Amino acid sequence: MSSVFTKIINGEIPAYKIAEDEDFIAFLDVMPLVKGHTLVVPKKEVDLIFDLDSEDYKNLWSFAQHVAKKIKKGIPCVRVGVAVVGLEVPHAHIHLIPLNTVDDMNFKNQRLKLSAEEYSEIQNLIINS
Amino acid sequence: MSSVFTKIINGEIPAYKIAEDEDFIAFLDVMPLVKGHTLVVPKKEVDLIFDLDSEDYKNLWSFAQHVAKKIKKGIPCVRVGVAVVGLEVPHAHIHLIPLNTVDDMNFKNQRLKLSAEEYSEIQNLIINS
Repeated sequence: MSSVFTKIINGEIPAYKIAEDEDFIAFLDVMPLVKGHTLVVPKKEVDLIFDLDSEDYKNLWSFAQHVAKKIKKGIPCVRVGVAVVGLEVPHAHIHLIPLNTVDDMNFKNQRLKLSAEEYSEIQNLIINS
Repeated sequence: MSSVFTKIINGEIPAYKIAEDEDFIAFLDVMPLVKGHTLVVPKKEVDLIFDLDSEDYKNLWSFAQHVAKKIKKGIPCVRVGVAVVGLEVPHAHIHLIPLNTVDDMNFKNQRLKLSAEEYSEIQNLIINS
């Protein structure tokens, strides 16, 4: 069965897209830890990020670098943090999280519930940064 | 003033080294969240990881991929997680953390205090994996 991320990639599930190319996609986490929390995902469905072949793996991180710089410009934060956890969805993904304190990256925190308008506003802040 | 990581790189502060090449170094975090928690650091002293130039940045992640595979082989865990936070030491670094639950990557958790023998044992488990 396709992962939830593959369904987003295939357009079967909507998402607030931040960037996309032939191999990678970035979209807002629908259950964000903080506003601007973004997921960066390879279109190839691989469970463990370190199992990507060397070139795909490096290109994924380059894509994430580009997205992180957009987030830093668009969302007020001290810096953009990175996390790869992957215990829930078996499709490799990078979390990019605007940080003001270390607790902003605590995955045990309650996730935000945002309205469609709020997601769109955040999407525009990042895309147009 | 040199960062604490530059002091480790220059051999002024001892560390339990996991891997090293001309540009990068990996060593055990001296205040680990879990056993096997490792830091991957570029020798060039840059604050924000995303400010590394594109080649250095990609090579740093490649180096981390190699180290993560060693950790996964040497330390019992479900997978190796990744975090970049950087609110404390202004010298870019990647945390590689053997994960069994998502809470293993909670930076608010109390850090472990290990003996020199325990650090050496973990170092050997990873290096010889």
